[in-house]
Amino acid sequence: MSDSALHPLDRAIALEPLAAHRYQGQTNPAYQNMVGPYGGIIAAILLNGVLEHPDRLGEPVALTVHFAAPIADGRFELQARPMRTNRNTQHWLVELSQDDGIAAYATAITANRRDTWGTTDAEFPAVPPATDVPLAELPPLRWTGCYEMRFVEGAMGEPAAGPHPSRTRVWLRDKPARTLDFAALASLCDAFFPRIFLRRPGRVPVGTVTLTTYFHVTGAQLAAIGTEPVLGEARGSVPAQRAAGSDTR
Amino acid sequence: MSDSALHPLDRAIALEPLAAHRYQGQTNPAYQNMVGPYGGIIAAILLNGVLEHPDRLGEPVALTVHFAAPIADGRFELQARPMRTNRNTQHWLVELSQDDGIAAYATAITANRRDTWGTTDAEFPAVPPATDVPLAELPPLRWTGCYEMRFVEGAMGEPAAGPHPSRTRVWLRDKPARTLDFAALASLCDAFFPRIFLRRPGRVPVGTVTLTTYFHVTGAQLAAIGTEPVLGEARGSVPAQRAAGSDTR
Repeated sequence: MSDSALHPLDRAIALEPLAAHRYQGQTNPAYQNMVGPYGGIIAAILLNGVLEHPDRLGEPVALTVHFAAPIADGRFELQARPMRTNRNTQHWLVELSQDDGIAAYATAITANRRDTWGTTDAEFPAVPPATDVPLAELPPLRWTGCYEMRFVEGAMGEPAAGPHPSRTRVWLRDKPARTLDFAALASLCDAFFPRIFLRRPGRVPVGTVTLTTYFHVTGAQLAAIGTEPVLGEARGSVPAQRAAGSDTR
Repeated sequence: MSDSALHPLDRAIALEPLAAHRYQGQTNPAYQNMVGPYGGIIAAILLNGVLEHPDRLGEPVALTVHFAAPIADGRFELQARPMRTNRNTQHWLVELSQDDGIAAYATAITANRRDTWGTTDAEFPAVPPATDVPLAELPPLRWTGCYEMRFVEGAMGEPAAGPHPSRTRVWLRDKPARTLDFAALASLCDAFFPRIFLRRPGRVPVGTVTLTTYFHVTGAQLAAIGTEPVLGEARGSVPAQRAAGSDTR
């Protein structure tokens, strides 16, 4: 497949092996944010260092990303190391560096899932189907052009009615459509605008410092979703301006 | 202060500097779990490597712990490194190793908090005060002797009534009482028993693989709480047996 036939997400997360545990990649303009790349694509790149690693055991179950410094447009190096490999779980550290040091890093766990007793306590919220919710006009950034968003509640500048004014519920999908997988989902999980943009009119400087994603899903389940939109929900516990923390994005 | 005058938590997390970024510590029998130390005390030890580091900037805002392998009773070495230091935020990696390699590691962020606009969207649940809730009899493990727990709902083997059967609400306090600080809170955040113990009778093998804590609180606020109990709430999204993930503890 030629490079231009690839989905923009696959182009953006592509890694070229350099040596054991080491890869080279480069930022992709399609996912540009106001300063540097959109955080979600950085999360997907870091996870991809695990996904493409020849020693990987099982599928991702958890990912914690640290956005440590601004990322410059251009090349970066990725180092992905299994810190510990057990019989059914594997613990990872992935570092993204540029000339002036580490710009982002992540820890992850991959595991073999087993068929055991389980139950789901989370409930799917009562929301209209995506087809009944209009496509939102998004702020004209490059990365927002890579997603379709259909806000059920809590669009930017429109605090949700009811007891959770900082809650957003939104149908999300890659644009152009792309079958969901772990990398795409890792990226999608950062697509929520900062909670303070919901609670306060006007824009203030804000930056994500860390983001943790738990994957309660298998690769087969993601593939079965295909290109259908998924419902995202965000809620800030303590929306604030410039207090560091993952829910202040 | 003599060693025996220290609170058991302070003895358990004590670190002796070895060299730049390196400390030595040892497991403390007071916090023993069924196999190795209680995970919360490991979280507190890892965070303490940041708290005691001479280059630390600000206070903890986030901590992600990986429980990578069983920890043997006895000595361990800790390495705590700032991965990136910015003007107001600092990103950390802390590794705990024993003879056979890395047994646990953590990432953390510390930051200078600034006085800015903020609001609290989280609501304090309607629960009786701790003084009206009886002290629970806990399973006779060493570490459970280090805590007082008063279950408002969701005690072990007693699924909560209502829509969230895997939810626990519990008043928690160190035993003996100790003024709250970041290390004590990091430890307390692992004090919730595995959600499956709430949903299924009988005991099954279960282990925490990772735990993320966001500190929406300052050190001064923690000190103001003093030795008062704090309310903990736990809820599993997908309680399961042996599926890896932080909420399957």
